[in-house]
Amino acid sequence: MRDFARQVYAFVGLGLMGGAFVRALRPVLTEARKHGEFQALLSPRSGKTQSGKTEGPGPAQALAFDADPQVLIAAAEEGLIDRGFSEAGEMLALSDVVFLCLNPRSAEFFLRDHREEFKPGSLITDICGIKRSLLPLARELSAGNLDFIPGHPMAGSEKEGFANSRAFRFTGRNYILTPLPENRPENLAFLRDLIYRLGFSRIVETSAEDHDEKIAFTSQLCHVIAAALIDSSPDASITRFGGGSFEDLTRIAEFNASMWAELFTGNRDKLTGQIDRFAASLDRLRLLIDQSRGEELQNLLAGIREKRIKMESPR
Amino acid sequence: MRDFARQVYAFVGLGLMGGAFVRALRPVLTEARKHGEFQALLSPRSGKTQSGKTEGPGPAQALAFDADPQVLIAAAEEGLIDRGFSEAGEMLALSDVVFLCLNPRSAEFFLRDHREEFKPGSLITDICGIKRSLLPLARELSAGNLDFIPGHPMAGSEKEGFANSRAFRFTGRNYILTPLPENRPENLAFLRDLIYRLGFSRIVETSAEDHDEKIAFTSQLCHVIAAALIDSSPDASITRFGGGSFEDLTRIAEFNASMWAELFTGNRDKLTGQIDRFAASLDRLRLLIDQSRGEELQNLLAGIREKRIKMESPR
Repeated sequence: MRDFARQVYAFVGLGLMGGAFVRALRPVLTEARKHGEFQALLSPRSGKTQSGKTEGPGPAQALAFDADPQVLIAAAEEGLIDRGFSEAGEMLALSDVVFLCLNPRSAEFFLRDHREEFKPGSLITDICGIKRSLLPLARELSAGNLDFIPGHPMAGSEKEGFANSRAFRFTGRNYILTPLPENRPENLAFLRDLIYRLGFSRIVETSAEDHDEKIAFTSQLCHVIAAALIDSSPDASITRFGGGSFEDLTRIAEFNASMWAELFTGNRDKLTGQIDRFAASLDRLRLLIDQSRGEELQNLLAGIREKRIKMESPR
Repeated sequence: MRDFARQVYAFVGLGLMGGAFVRALRPVLTEARKHGEFQALLSPRSGKTQSGKTEGPGPAQALAFDADPQVLIAAAEEGLIDRGFSEAGEMLALSDVVFLCLNPRSAEFFLRDHREEFKPGSLITDICGIKRSLLPLARELSAGNLDFIPGHPMAGSEKEGFANSRAFRFTGRNYILTPLPENRPENLAFLRDLIYRLGFSRIVETSAEDHDEKIAFTSQLCHVIAAALIDSSPDASITRFGGGSFEDLTRIAEFNASMWAELFTGNRDKLTGQIDRFAASLDRLRLLIDQSRGEELQNLLAGIREKRIKMESPR
């Protein structure tokens, strides 16, 4: 298996998620150095640790490509990346493990444009919120000399961009992998190990189809609901009447509009199905309320409460 | 105007909200003592303050009535109330300011049963989440020798009961008052002052009609949505695919089923109207998604995002 402390990691896109990844990776690599996981391979740029032991960046490196040079500079100044690239091909040729931290459509364009520039044997993964769209290309690449393992870290924020990655942590989050038949078992084992090291608390493995069905419910439907709530709100002064529920339900409506429009339409078959199921439940509740069927309503709400409470300890 | 440090306060019902009220009132009264707001009226049960000044419970007292004696004992042991009552009438006869911390229907029953037992001149207020149902009775009482000022603290939790009031704070919350033409201005001024002292950050005054319309949106609709989301969820294991949004939107579905069934049906005309407006927005989004009208969808989402951002600083 790959030694995680000896890989060259590359991040394509240093937005919120790319930023969060380099931020989570840095202490993991630093920790590995402290414990001498690759003491034998110290680089010439070595320094002193707190304990006086000699250390250095070692063979593991974090590289990043982003269209915005300011972001690369900021990440390098924070010590999060060893080198920034304005030319993706140059970086890809040096990299063992590549994280595509792009929206689905950009990820697909990037892969098509740069497929010949990856280092042979590279492990590639993505973070896209829909998993069927990249599937044919991922399988095609993985049938060759690359290994593309599709993934989806279940972590996000309504605040986008590298600057907002500062307050962002992966601790306690879910990570979904939708491995392909073509994936090398040792690469999958490596990626699983790396994901836990980055702070995620659970990995769920399933098919792209099942992922898109489930995510349409837990993520996309929730964003559609938040959007509809704001759309149907009278005006901004309504929060003078807020007690917390409205604020909690609509915080995610400060979303990145282009990304979510892309996710919604990209998964429209699954998402419209989930909207319809939700709307049916809403109708059912509306009917009991409208007809003042208090006892039936109370029984339904009590059952819902029980169902929700069972969701509290899913691990 | 009433001196808040010389009133006898009574709390009918020590559930989550009653508990939170006695918990918020206690330090306010203690602070008043420290600053000598009624030093001239020290009781024989006096002690020493940290600064060595003599203090005592003074004339201000917090009394409580609850059907569960264990709750009264717990509140007394915590030093939150000066005396607990299992007989409401006995307490009401002693009280200047009465908080009815009951569900709407129970509050109405309580008022009808005990209307003759209040001390003449008492200021009464409630915490009910719908304001039209108590209106006729409140006006009737206020036309006599009582003064009923309807109120609704915009604070709640899905965790009910006195025990859960421990972690509960009013700081930063909204409070809605729906004063009546019959209310005495000096009592209204007193109640406003007390509400701010309890930690609330804003008081909104409006009609019962407007309250019920707005609350149907900010509070009840949100609870209906959370309920419909849980109702339409496949099963409890769905949270393995959760990234936070679903959890945030459905936390309130761990509600007190009987109270919410009562609030929903009690406000059904306003609530069904809000459900319909929300459902229309949901339909609009669904259509754009289903027809892959990406640009229109993105524009709509961008407008929604702007509207939500404006809601961030309503004060």
